[in-house]
This record gives sequence, structure tokens and C-alpha cells, in this order.
Amino acid sequence: METQEIDHVGVVVENIDQAIKFYEEKLGMKCIYKDVLNDRGLKVAFMRGKEGETAIELLEPVNHEDMNNTVAKFLKTKGQGMHHLAVKVSDISASLKDLENKGLTLIDKTPRPGAMGHTVAFVHPKSVMGLLLELVQH
Amino acid sequence: METQEIDHVGVVVENIDQAIKFYEEKLGMKCIYKDVLNDRGLKVAFMRGKEGETAIELLEPVNHEDMNNTVAKFLKTKGQGMHHLAVKVSDISASLKDLENKGLTLIDKTPRPGAMGHTVAFVHPKSVMGLLLELVQH
Repeated sequence: METQEIDHVGVVVENIDQAIKFYEEKLGMKCIYKDVLNDRGLKVAFMRGKEGETAIELLEPVNHEDMNNTVAKFLKTKGQGMHHLAVKVSDISASLKDLENKGLTLIDKTPRPGAMGHTVAFVHPKSVMGLLLELVQH
Repeated sequence: METQEIDHVGVVVENIDQAIKFYEEKLGMKCIYKDVLNDRGLKVAFMRGKEGETAIELLEPVNHEDMNNTVAKFLKTKGQGMHHLAVKVSDISASLKDLENKGLTLIDKTPRPGAMGHTVAFVHPKSVMGLLLELVQH
């Protein structure tokens, strides 16, 4: 696998609208995308400093009480903060196969649709030195 | 304050040499810088996918048992994983003043020398929605 660049950093927040406002007004970032991913039970927003650069993906669970939702569980047990790191790859299927061959534990054995129309897959943090890794193919 | 881009993501690891090898061999990243910051009691290494893009800063405490070292304490209490997010700014002193005026809690009231010859300052996570924020001026 060849990491092209850091696509985004996922950050879990209590209230996505307040977070967007905070990142805009305090940190001078822009919201470039906002959506509700119903299949994952998440509200997401992408924030960016400059065009083309690594983004921050803000994540809020639609239902904060749903402990089957990993982001709601994260928020309840760890609180707000960084959740995952997403790297851009050119061929996500080949990258997943490569990582599996190298002994890493895949959460998604096959790529699936993610935010912004991209294709994504997650790799288990226990096999990435504590890092919840997301692969993204644009 | 205007965030230019995400400079790097700080990731705490148990063993920096094993981590560099892992990021190189499994994730196809390159080590572009390695140092020991004696004043902070840290071994650091910067990993990158592509030239000019957001880096990952691997961090290992020099003394894992020193609970006055915030990274050693992080490792002991939370384990390996993402630790801070660093954004690049053009004028770090002006950005710190701006954030303080906006009510954020500064860990470093004045900028100090960081890795790679850059100037850095940290902002408290309780005032950044759980995010330990570092400002970096190149």
C-alpha cells in the first residue's frame, strides 16, 4: 500500500452545528460539505483551511444514546476528540488486500460508500498501533 | 486566526523505531525527520506520504515512567493513538492573541521552539471541543 496523503482527520463532537460555528469563527476554517449518513447514523461536516489540503471531518451521532453506534459509544466513553485518521490511496481494494496480507485486521473486508461520494474502508486500531485507520479512494 | 492547513497529526507510540518501520513497511510512508527533543523528554519522527502534504508526528517519551511528562502519562492512561492536531499559521503570536481574545485557554502563552526548527504553541483541549490544538509557524 502506498499512502498518498492524509485525506482527513475524524473528530467526534457533541453538537455538529456548534462545532462548525466554532471551527469557522475561532479557527478560521470553512465548511466545505455537510451531510447525514443515515446508514451509519452520523451527521458529518468537512472543514478545511485551504483548498485541496487535509480536511477535518466533524462527526456527531444522530442518536447519542445508541450504544451500537461506535461514534455514540466513543462520545459517551471517551468524550469529544480525535477519532480516526483517513489516508488517500489510489486503489482501495488493492490496498486492503495488501494490508491483510501484511497481517493487519480489516474492519471492512470490502470497500463501501463513504462521505462525499468517496469509497472507504476501516482498519482496526489494534493492528495499527492504536490508530483507527480509514482508507479513502476519491 | 486563519488556519492555513493541517501541518501534522501527533500520534503517541510505545516504540518509535518499531513505529517508523511499521509506517514505512505497512503504510508506505517515508520518515522525513527524526530527533530527540530533550527539553520535552520526547523522541519524535515525522512521517509523510507525499512531499508537502500533512505529516504524522510519531511521539515516544524518553522516560515512559515519568508521569510529569504529558506524553508518558497519555501512553500510560490512554495507550497508543492520536494525541494532538497541529495547524499551520502565518503569524503565531497574533493567532495566540486572537484565540485568547476569543476565550480559548492557552497552554503556551508565548510561542516556543518545536520540532524541525518551527515555532509552536499549544491550546487546551477543554477550550477546543476535546482537541489538543498546536499552532505551528514555519
